[in-house]
Amino acid sequence: MRAGGLPWCTPSPESEAQMNDLLSRFAAVRRHSLALAEPLSAEDCCAQSMPDASPVKWHLAHTTWFFETFVLEPNEAGFRPFHPAFRVLFNSYYNGVGARHPRPQRGLLTRPALVEVLAYRANVDQRMQALLARQGGNAALQTLVELGLQHEQQHQELLLTDVLHLLSCNPMAPAYRDARPQADAPAVAPALDWVECAGGLVEVGHTGPGFSFDNELPRHATYLAPYALGARLVNQGEFAAFIADGGYARPELWLAEGWDWLAAQHIAHPLYWRAAEEGGWNRFGLHGEQPLTPHAPAAHLSYFEADAYARWAGARLPTEAEWEAAAAPTVHLAPALLAHAGAPSPRIEPQAAAGNGLRGLFGEVWQWTQSSYAPYPGFRTAEGAVGEYNGKFMVNQYVLRGSSCATPAGHARLSYRNFFPTTARWQFSGLRLARDV
Amino acid sequence: MRAGGLPWCTPSPESEAQMNDLLSRFAAVRRHSLALAEPLSAEDCCAQSMPDASPVKWHLAHTTWFFETFVLEPNEAGFRPFHPAFRVLFNSYYNGVGARHPRPQRGLLTRPALVEVLAYRANVDQRMQALLARQGGNAALQTLVELGLQHEQQHQELLLTDVLHLLSCNPMAPAYRDARPQADAPAVAPALDWVECAGGLVEVGHTGPGFSFDNELPRHATYLAPYALGARLVNQGEFAAFIADGGYARPELWLAEGWDWLAAQHIAHPLYWRAAEEGGWNRFGLHGEQPLTPHAPAAHLSYFEADAYARWAGARLPTEAEWEAAAAPTVHLAPALLAHAGAPSPRIEPQAAAGNGLRGLFGEVWQWTQSSYAPYPGFRTAEGAVGEYNGKFMVNQYVLRGSSCATPAGHARLSYRNFFPTTARWQFSGLRLARDV
Amino acid sequence: MRAGGLPWCTPSPESEAQMNDLLSRFAAVRRHSLALAEPLSAEDCCAQSMPDASPVKWHLAHTTWFFETFVLEPNEAGFRPFHPAFRVLFNSYYNGVGARHPRPQRGLLTRPALVEVLAYRANVDQRMQALLARQGGNAALQTLVELGLQHEQQHQELLLTDVLHLLSCNPMAPAYRDARPQADAPAVAPALDWVECAGGLVEVGHTGPGFSFDNELPRHATYLAPYALGARLVNQGEFAAFIADGGYARPELWLAEGWDWLAAQHIAHPLYWRAAEEGGWNRFGLHGEQPLTPHAPAAHLSYFEADAYARWAGARLPTEAEWEAAAAPTVHLAPALLAHAGAPSPRIEPQAAAGNGLRGLFGEVWQWTQSSYAPYPGFRTAEGAVGEYNGKFMVNQYVLRGSSCATPAGHARLSYRNFFPTTARWQFSGLRLARDV
Amino acid sequence: MRAGGLPWCTPSPESEAQMNDLLSRFAAVRRHSLALAEPLSAEDCCAQSMPDASPVKWHLAHTTWFFETFVLEPNEAGFRPFHPAFRVLFNSYYNGVGARHPRPQRGLLTRPALVEVLAYRANVDQRMQALLARQGGNAALQTLVELGLQHEQQHQELLLTDVLHLLSCNPMAPAYRDARPQADAPAVAPALDWVECAGGLVEVGHTGPGFSFDNELPRHATYLAPYALGARLVNQGEFAAFIADGGYARPELWLAEGWDWLAAQHIAHPLYWRAAEEGGWNRFGLHGEQPLTPHAPAAHLSYFEADAYARWAGARLPTEAEWEAAAAPTVHLAPALLAHAGAPSPRIEPQAAAGNGLRGLFGEVWQWTQSSYAPYPGFRTAEGAVGEYNGKFMVNQYVLRGSSCATPAGHARLSYRNFFPTTARWQFSGLRLARDV
Repeated sequence: MRAGGLPWCTPSPESEAQMNDLLSRFAAVRRHSLALAEPLSAEDCCAQSMPDASPVKWHLAHTTWFFETFVLEPNEAGFRPFHPAFRVLFNSYYNGVGARHPRPQRGLLTRPALVEVLAYRANVDQRMQALLARQGGNAALQTLVELGLQHEQQHQELLLTDVLHLLSCNPMAPAYRDARPQADAPAVAPALDWVECAGGLVEVGHTGPGFSFDNELPRHATYLAPYALGARLVNQGEFAAFIADGGYARPELWLAEGWDWLAAQHIAHPLYWRAAEEGGWNRFGLHGEQPLTPHAPAAHLSYFEADAYARWAGARLPTEAEWEAAAAPTVHLAPALLAHAGAPSPRIEPQAAAGNGLRGLFGEVWQWTQSSYAPYPGFRTAEGAVGEYNGKFMVNQYVLRGSSCATPAGHARLSYRNFFPTTARWQFSGLRLARDV
Repeated sequence: MRAGGLPWCTPSPESEAQMNDLLSRFAAVRRHSLALAEPLSAEDCCAQSMPDASPVKWHLAHTTWFFETFVLEPNEAGFRPFHPAFRVLFNSYYNGVGARHPRPQRGLLTRPALVEVLAYRANVDQRMQALLARQGGNAALQTLVELGLQHEQQHQELLLTDVLHLLSCNPMAPAYRDARPQADAPAVAPALDWVECAGGLVEVGHTGPGFSFDNELPRHATYLAPYALGARLVNQGEFAAFIADGGYARPELWLAEGWDWLAAQHIAHPLYWRAAEEGGWNRFGLHGEQPLTPHAPAAHLSYFEADAYARWAGARLPTEAEWEAAAAPTVHLAPALLAHAGAPSPRIEPQAAAGNGLRGLFGEVWQWTQSSYAPYPGFRTAEGAVGEYNGKFMVNQYVLRGSSCATPAGHARLSYRNFFPTTARWQFSGLRLARDV
Repeated sequence: MRAGGLPWCTPSPESEAQMNDLLSRFAAVRRHSLALAEPLSAEDCCAQSMPDASPVKWHLAHTTWFFETFVLEPNEAGFRPFHPAFRVLFNSYYNGVGARHPRPQRGLLTRPALVEVLAYRANVDQRMQALLARQGGNAALQTLVELGLQHEQQHQELLLTDVLHLLSCNPMAPAYRDARPQADAPAVAPALDWVECAGGLVEVGHTGPGFSFDNELPRHATYLAPYALGARLVNQGEFAAFIADGGYARPELWLAEGWDWLAAQHIAHPLYWRAAEEGGWNRFGLHGEQPLTPHAPAAHLSYFEADAYARWAGARLPTEAEWEAAAAPTVHLAPALLAHAGAPSPRIEPQAAAGNGLRGLFGEVWQWTQSSYAPYPGFRTAEGAVGEYNGKFMVNQYVLRGSSCATPAGHARLSYRNFFPTTARWQFSGLRLARDV
Repeated sequence: MRAGGLPWCTPSPESEAQMNDLLSRFAAVRRHSLALAEPLSAEDCCAQSMPDASPVKWHLAHTTWFFETFVLEPNEAGFRPFHPAFRVLFNSYYNGVGARHPRPQRGLLTRPALVEVLAYRANVDQRMQALLARQGGNAALQTLVELGLQHEQQHQELLLTDVLHLLSCNPMAPAYRDARPQADAPAVAPALDWVECAGGLVEVGHTGPGFSFDNELPRHATYLAPYALGARLVNQGEFAAFIADGGYARPELWLAEGWDWLAAQHIAHPLYWRAAEEGGWNRFGLHGEQPLTPHAPAAHLSYFEADAYARWAGARLPTEAEWEAAAAPTVHLAPALLAHAGAPSPRIEPQAAAGNGLRGLFGEVWQWTQSSYAPYPGFRTAEGAVGEYNGKFMVNQYVLRGSSCATPAGHARLSYRNFFPTTARWQFSGLRLARDV
């Protein structure tokens, strides 16, 4: 596989400094995965609560498998796999790599034990560092390593959301981590203000020297009519008002498929919301069960719920191009985009963003757009198995923009395209309103 | 409901000539539905072969219900329904009208009998004609009548495709209508030629004085990079070559969800294709089981199959804007767009289009595009139940463009947006290739 | 296939009188099937409301197929099938005969039309009569013909219960046949009285010269402890009291599998019972929707419901041996057992039986027993496809005894073993209580 | 709950010796559960491989819950539960106790951790011993304790079969325990010999002073025709011959429901049999994947497979009364019935039984009978939640007799009635043939 053949966009590191930066990024990202698993027992790390989620142990192993399969195997002299069975066990969806363990049965892999997976990680880490020390100047290799790190960061977010789902299935409502005392929150959220955008012929998609996934490319022109975006995210108090107004019982607010989904799944509130004994709602999160935080962003919404809320509010969801074009001028101000990989996440729950203008773009909740996940004009995939990374999922999913409180530091990006089916709710997914002007 | 409140685009008829035209269109369209049912027995008209399909009798009744509910009820003095139970029985999906009979149980409605439904049609026709004679100059009324006629024409196509599916479930492979002897077809299809389009900022969506559905509006600008479209449709011989080349067994050609769908449904060829005893393929159609017609368009493909074929061919599906922009200059030449409503369909099977340049745009098979079915910028729905017509289906479906051999005369339109889920195959759905240039 | 090889028990007719009797029975039974279809349209006869039920047209064809396949094919010189496709279309479950049309798709067979099936019947009838005229003295042939007639009578009952289910799916609640005015029913049902039986070593199973199915053989000894049976059937008023007492909401009354079934299917009353607008219950039957008849037997109960009712009443279901041993002394008095085949059924709804002692044994509702459907000691099946008649269904079903108002005249028998899965409710199935003494 | 009100049959211990015996039995049985979990990690103990199986940790907790709920709660002064949430988490199916955690989600209970469950066990053990020391002379209490011990022994067998199923889902085929070297097995199994039984009026059901479950009572008379039983169990070599003879592809050998099950589940061999690379079969067991042992009993058969094999062999399954009547005279010789509770199991795989006459009755594989699981005449359940133990499962299941290599020492009994649905295969379930004589 040639670097030139890879559609991912990465810089050409030419100096030793860049090389050392990659080594240190590698160490930091790998270490962060272990840090995320730290509060969990081996039992916690083994269970799988639904087919869409994976066990923590599997995340730890699969991200290691990615480096072993895509980096070490073609580049390491005398390559021998750590364990021959792991090639199948920890392949996620790469048909090009061969067979794989059925996804819904990942939670049955009590063997290898967590300690063996940790040994696997240590082994691959050591071999990766040796490889990078020898061949670190190879641009193609660097691109793959960077891809592996970005890939691991994606799994770091999934690790947290998957654990949250697992813990939510336990009637004892255990917390992943105890909440730290928080500064007093404002009792009242400000009324929603809007930011107007002129539209016109704009460019969207990744640009510049940094990394991006193939699905953010190529940068291209698109035409937008004038529009406005909600300056802040829809918050929990607003969503509770939607429920109180019969939002889940009024078919005119829902897409037909969403309305059928409500009925089939008996859905009448966001995932993890629970009727409080004293009336109102609690919500379950990584800090356990807590009362609503009315002015903090609503999370764990499906596309259908986000869309219905927007219709109820007399608005609509933005397109992803609208989101990106509006967000572009503000990006240099976003703290979430400036953090270093491996830096500890300050929070694992969304909170109300302070300030004026467009806010809460990153680091709170992913924001559903009305855009179906589709290839950008001129999109092409890499050859070989690694080309299965993104392209084959571009159907029947919708794009979310921004990033969430579970996104690891240094991973968010203006042109980032997250995507999920319309019924997915276990991510930190919320919404920002849009309207025509 | 005010006409001004309706987003459908229709002319304002001011002359008696236009009024007479509407009356004659009404008679012609209504008559055509009966003509389509003519070759069928009462038993044929009652059965439902799958939840997605409806019985012919139900189509005949529901299209009548549409006029009774949306035109007569608000406009007829002293309105009384033909039968109080029909309001529920023949409501398709309008929550605003109230309860409805469960869709998968439409085939169990052996009562009312077919003759009673025919009486229902005659009654409503007579009342409609009386109403139009009295209030025909009312623009809002005319808009609704036109909507009802367009709606009935949509059901005329479904009536044929639903009957085809029903007959395909019968091991005796009965024909809907015997085939007429055909002129000798050319033994060899011409190689695929391409038509290049410059793209740029184009306008798409309905324009001009004629009718369109709300989903074709508003006309708006969009930006296209340069591209090329296949001048003709992918034909049966080409699709057989795809199969022979292992097309259904190579995961790298398929979207991931499509690949899973193949496995779950044991799909290895287009719907209605059957292995011929003497080798090769037959296909079942409205004329019964017949050998492939290699140079005629391939039909009954899902989005997944169309997409996989395009990838195999080194091409891709067009977007709907690409399709419309390329087709626009040729539209004045398309015979299918010039036919009068109610004119008998000359064919009920697709055939190879003659000529040069972009061809086969209309009247052969609907053409899958890669565009998810979404609202046009500025889209809005009508108020009231009739507003449920299109908007609530704009998710997890993909747009098809053109029209098919089952589309009734006078119904096709350049800006027409047909839409189905990615697994739907019982329509006359095929594909035209696209590529970047 | 030799008659000696058949386990069915039939007389050896030696005289011409017996021969004529068979011919006249054949004509009467065949005619009765047509009479049952008489109130129905071709549409009514084509539809299938659930996989367990079959269309009337299918019943008419399948019973004809049985004679054609098992009687004409091996015995008719120069046999040629009426239509080659019918061998597959109208095979129910005989693997020994070859392929068969999938059961859940019987309602999609709009072709052959009803008139063609009637022609099929007439053709086979004529050939059967010719065959019997020539070879009527052949005992093996007579046994098969008798089996075919008994088989057709079973389908006559199913025809009625399947039509009832179909009509129940129609919101217009159409009646199969209008109700005749009935004599005033007694306002109050007598309290339940009990009939005690000594038990001991008893013989059960068919005996004597008449026909029986193989599953009623061989007659054999079994030991019974003393017991008592309810003299009459559980009636609708009593079942309404069970509901009013929370019967469907008290897990201690239900078998665990039944309790899960209630929850999964949202079941809270017998099939066809509908909450009346004025309070209380109506029930849907072959005469349409009517108020409960409190003192008439409760019908359309599953095994689970019958068992739960019995537990609520401080009783239990009888075993089939208990039922047969208790009923044996009274059989010579049962009018239902004395009727001639083909005689019109006086009623198509169960009613309270008059008199004293064990009553309502036949002609009202089938009575669930606690006996799993199992082979009698020494049971053996016939060789060949006809041996698939009963034996292969002897698992996970429970035996019902007696007969119902839908059982054709001349078909009931003391040793008759009807059988259905524990969740079946669309038959006229009720219960008689039992208890230890 | 009064002892007199309990249908379980237990002795009335009057001496201190008997009291000490119960204490020592309690300690031994409880210790044995821990010994069974000893080879497993916390991860192994947490996972659940299918809804029918439970995690080892859950078994350890639930058996403890049984003592806490049914013994300590009504008898311990000042009872306070170890943890209030455990009442719900570890209730299996007792509606009388209240809510319970959904069975298919037992594997998601990563909390409480295994160490907490072990602490729960230690706590309840200590309280139980204190209670028994104080009130050990109370016969009702003793009966409940004995029931709890028998209950725990049942779960000891399930623990092993559930772990076997879990390990079988791991592509690495891990062994629960390494196999010990075995004495050379005979190369050839003896031909099947038969033991004839006269039948007649026999008594079956528990008798004598020892414990039995309520479903083994009351002892009662039943009548049997003469019959013969296979002297030994059907072995793996014979079952392989059945497969080689097309056993899984011949519908005439199967019950209709079994035939449909084969097709729906794609079943063509016993559970845990795997095609060996070198041809023939391996089987997966608690010692990992191993070649067939041709003369050892076939195991992991469903009722359908046992029944089909018997038909293929020209025989049938015995009834449970036939089995018990034939086994009764030999019981005093069965080593498996003489072992003390808590004694280590010498083997965890079935092997060929040596000797003459009826052999392999206990300690190898449970033997399917053709008897549906039904109440014995006069059966009654205990009042209260403990009465849910057996009775509510008496439908749509079939009885297995004997015991298996996974049955703990001291738990087997002549009158023991094990029961499973017809498709269950994860138990050590095999068969012994029967035939009429």
